[in-house]
Amino acid sequence: PSLKLREVASMYFTMVAAFLVILVVALQGSVPRESDFPYKVPLDPQGLLELSWNVSYPEQAVHFQLLIRELQFGILFGMSDRGEFENADLAVLWSDGHNSYFGDAWSDAKGQLHMDSQQDYQLLGARRAPEGLYLLFRRAFSTCDPKDYLIEDGTVHLIYGILEEPVHSLQAINISALHGGLQRVQLLKPNVSIPELPSDMKTMEITAPNVVIPSQETTYWCYMAELPAGFPKHHIIMYEPVVTAGNEALVHHMEVFQCAAEFDSFPHYNGPCDSKMKPDRLNYCRHVLAAWAMGAQAFYYPEEAGLAFGGPGSSRYLRLEIHYHNPLVFKGRHDSSGIRLYYTATLRPYDAGIMELGLVYTPVMAIPPGEDNFILTGYCTDKCTQLALPAAGIRIFASQLHTHLAGRKVVTVLSRDGRERQVVNADRHYSPHFQEIRMLKEVVAVFPGDELITTCTYNTEDRSRATVGGFGILEEMCVNYVHYYPQTQLELCKSAVDLGYLHRYFNLVNRFNDEEICMCPQVSVPQQFYSIPWNTFNRDVLKSLYGFAPISMHCNKSSAVRFPGEWEKQPLPSITEKLPEPVPHCPPAPGPQPAAPVPLKLGQLRR
Amino acid sequence: PSLKLREVASMYFTMVAAFLVILVVALQGSVPRESDFPYKVPLDPQGLLELSWNVSYPEQAVHFQLLIRELQFGILFGMSDRGEFENADLAVLWSDGHNSYFGDAWSDAKGQLHMDSQQDYQLLGARRAPEGLYLLFRRAFSTCDPKDYLIEDGTVHLIYGILEEPVHSLQAINISALHGGLQRVQLLKPNVSIPELPSDMKTMEITAPNVVIPSQETTYWCYMAELPAGFPKHHIIMYEPVVTAGNEALVHHMEVFQCAAEFDSFPHYNGPCDSKMKPDRLNYCRHVLAAWAMGAQAFYYPEEAGLAFGGPGSSRYLRLEIHYHNPLVFKGRHDSSGIRLYYTATLRPYDAGIMELGLVYTPVMAIPPGEDNFILTGYCTDKCTQLALPAAGIRIFASQLHTHLAGRKVVTVLSRDGRERQVVNADRHYSPHFQEIRMLKEVVAVFPGDELITTCTYNTEDRSRATVGGFGILEEMCVNYVHYYPQTQLELCKSAVDLGYLHRYFNLVNRFNDEEICMCPQVSVPQQFYSIPWNTFNRDVLKSLYGFAPISMHCNKSSAVRFPGEWEKQPLPSITEKLPEPVPHCPPAPGPQPAAPVPLKLGQLRR
Repeated sequence: PSLKLREVASMYFTMVAAFLVILVVALQGSVPRESDFPYKVPLDPQGLLELSWNVSYPEQAVHFQLLIRELQFGILFGMSDRGEFENADLAVLWSDGHNSYFGDAWSDAKGQLHMDSQQDYQLLGARRAPEGLYLLFRRAFSTCDPKDYLIEDGTVHLIYGILEEPVHSLQAINISALHGGLQRVQLLKPNVSIPELPSDMKTMEITAPNVVIPSQETTYWCYMAELPAGFPKHHIIMYEPVVTAGNEALVHHMEVFQCAAEFDSFPHYNGPCDSKMKPDRLNYCRHVLAAWAMGAQAFYYPEEAGLAFGGPGSSRYLRLEIHYHNPLVFKGRHDSSGIRLYYTATLRPYDAGIMELGLVYTPVMAIPPGEDNFILTGYCTDKCTQLALPAAGIRIFASQLHTHLAGRKVVTVLSRDGRERQVVNADRHYSPHFQEIRMLKEVVAVFPGDELITTCTYNTEDRSRATVGGFGILEEMCVNYVHYYPQTQLELCKSAVDLGYLHRYFNLVNRFNDEEICMCPQVSVPQQFYSIPWNTFNRDVLKSLYGFAPISMHCNKSSAVRFPGEWEKQPLPSITEKLPEPVPHCPPAPGPQPAAPVPLKLGQLRR
Repeated sequence: PSLKLREVASMYFTMVAAFLVILVVALQGSVPRESDFPYKVPLDPQGLLELSWNVSYPEQAVHFQLLIRELQFGILFGMSDRGEFENADLAVLWSDGHNSYFGDAWSDAKGQLHMDSQQDYQLLGARRAPEGLYLLFRRAFSTCDPKDYLIEDGTVHLIYGILEEPVHSLQAINISALHGGLQRVQLLKPNVSIPELPSDMKTMEITAPNVVIPSQETTYWCYMAELPAGFPKHHIIMYEPVVTAGNEALVHHMEVFQCAAEFDSFPHYNGPCDSKMKPDRLNYCRHVLAAWAMGAQAFYYPEEAGLAFGGPGSSRYLRLEIHYHNPLVFKGRHDSSGIRLYYTATLRPYDAGIMELGLVYTPVMAIPPGEDNFILTGYCTDKCTQLALPAAGIRIFASQLHTHLAGRKVVTVLSRDGRERQVVNADRHYSPHFQEIRMLKEVVAVFPGDELITTCTYNTEDRSRATVGGFGILEEMCVNYVHYYPQTQLELCKSAVDLGYLHRYFNLVNRFNDEEICMCPQVSVPQQFYSIPWNTFNRDVLKSLYGFAPISMHCNKSSAVRFPGEWEKQPLPSITEKLPEPVPHCPPAPGPQPAAPVPLKLGQLRR
């Protein structure tokens, strides 16, 4: 054998030396300053735990700064698929009363904690300050450790737990006895450059008039505001939240809606949105002007576009809706939160528009009960974009995903000539309780002939009858509101399965299953779905139907007016080439640290 | 920040030192002696490349010794899913005429070679000998490198290529111009202990009588042999191949069949099995006594059992079938290969038996055309095993998987109380051209009430009409012949979909697709399958049907006699708990070597 062992060994020593240098740099050099954490969110309803973070796309890592205001015997912080404490990926700070330790841990399906064999939450520092203890740590987006959470675009469910007793080891922590909770955030904020703002910019605050937050867990508060008479057309170019100090953990999300132009006036109102006292006419205030949710920052329009408001043909009336989330049922909290609009009279080149993609609100699209992972797909076909989009195309710069309570994932993909080209927006941990307008990492150009395919995944494991499409909270939707410019006449590009084919399905189920189900034509579609005996065959064939049957397209100027053309029994777009699954990139250096807790000098902790 | 950097660094140095020690040991200590390679197979039809290997289950690795009889400018050796040169995992030895190199490479979907970033074929040595160059190298079963082939139980498709010109780099190798081919072997031979053989053991050779191998690629040769008159019952306890020296690369597989006992005599015959001269009665010689395929070794029965032959009620006539694979069309090669049976008159406690699991040979089980991955499943139900197996159960010790040309994978799983317990036999790279009887790694105990579920995966991408079940070479089968003891009356435990439900499927397809297909009852099942327009809906619903419809069970004493009981419209076994997917274990040390070719001192190579 003539192997040159010396060469191999020397190569190894070189690699190892390089690796150690990188490690030292990582530990010494990259402890960030406090000003380096642009994003912030309270974790618990009292605001005792406050998370700030930054995102480094070159490093493919998140740096966290966790402020613990009243440290007892440690905390758990981590991430899991949907906010559960089982199968979670955790950074744990714990103390036995004398010594404190930090480590990367995971919880199994029963919630038992284990030290992770690969330590991927890298502690960068710990610092005492008057307001509390700051922990600084770093986590790569992906670690290729199967016990670790993969940080992806879209919603991340953060979890926290407070250790109120000393613990002698990580394994001794009883998760079910912890005081803890979850907070949803978009961790991977897009790294978009902020456009220059004009000098004539003005601001307008649409805020609640010193509301007393009701002492109940959930309140949707409605407040009507009004633009000055004769307010001319302006462009909203930016907006940001105004949150009353001290209420950061209570104000969950806020939206400003513009009312319908066909009514000359709207009544004033200031009260809960579900009150019997709320005038019915407020239901006509549904056109989104601005939306914010916890953890989100200011929203900027691209510099070529603004959102038109004011001027003739546009209502002067605005509705502010605030979702107060008050699980600790605080009493007597006053709040004047809302949204500050930044607008200009110097109109930008393009009006921005909002287009609805996904599924028509119709019961023909249904989800059987007891499904953990049922997929419905809505199409915006080449035929519709060919007709309705300008030759130069449109630019999608933001997106708001929407389903009702069973929604778990939403993805919109752009396809051209049958080949998937680009993800428009994807949230694989979507929650109906966290519907932000999100700026896209990359603006998506859509041209005539392109197809936009929106896929929603639902969980109906807790339901005993079928969930049909519709407006009700227990019915479902699958929508992506895309924000784009220049504005076109196309407001709605959505689909639903052809009704004739659905009736063939009902007939088929009827004949195949030896059952006397009344699938008579006079029975409504929801009733027919409710009466199906849901065996595996009927479920599978419904999936096959939705994957095969032609569709009815809604290629509409407004919710009621279609573009001219034949829109019934359209063929499903065929996809000949899928986008490749993203392969997690696991940087080999600075690599994971050995699986031992890191001791911290925090002094003795209080009971 | 109070990180103890010194401790972390010291931990690293310790780890690194340990790693280097292991590396040195691996390079020096584990070069195995030649006698350590118990398995051997020629790779090419001329026998210029000869592979021997051993399997270390504790190390989860294979050690290869490749003999290159006439080295030119290098060779490629590797593995791929089904023997293709694209997407293959390769060890390459190449020379530019002056220097020689060894490296781990992979080929992409276009067949272009790339150096692997992780070098997992570990060169252990190279040695010149009079007969040629020996290369010794090692490969872990699984490497967790996505470019690497995962070595699993069952068939492995080995590929080889001969470099006839000097090459200046790995990337310069043009795979399509190579002289190369494939060889199928079971790499992971089971590590079973060889039972003690009795002193009164006798041998009998069933061999071809100096046959001239026809000068054509494929020949199935049939030769009739005869046991002596009055030959009493014996137990075959072992058999092994007898291959004429020099023909190792031509004798592809051999089987000895016993003829049916109902005929008193069979004609003598010695000629091709497909000859018109072959007497029809030879078709009644189908009961397998012994089977061998290239790369296989001796077959041992467990010490408590033997295969009965001879004695009253058993035919004296045997048929030897030899598959000669002669792609280079050698002329005038004489061959006297065959199988040597080892048998004893001292009967062992149990007769061994063979049972057929899987699907009944019936056209109701069909595969649509153009499928790359269509699954059919055959069941041996709890009801049948309850009735037919003894309370103490049976022991399956060997298995021969069988499909026709479209078969790609075969797996049999044992399930008890609805929970999958054990894989009986699995071949995820199954080839219908390589049907060995394989001893199982672990004997599988089957008790009354257990279920045996056999799943076959088919590829019909090259076919334009449906493939139905049946005996024809273009029809399909899904069978696992399991060898077990003690022998029971149960010869066949197989299923097929209920014919009534299949007719509902034909009706449903007819109604759903707006087509006037004659699905009239007088048309045969194959004709109905052939006339289906194969869209995604009809394909999906057929899958759903097979996954849902009740089955007709064949729980038979012989192919025609059922056990008493109701066997029609039986429910499908329900599985509440699947076996977990095997997680590849990737030992961290001795780890992969850096991605650089290893230079070898081989001297100048000849053109």
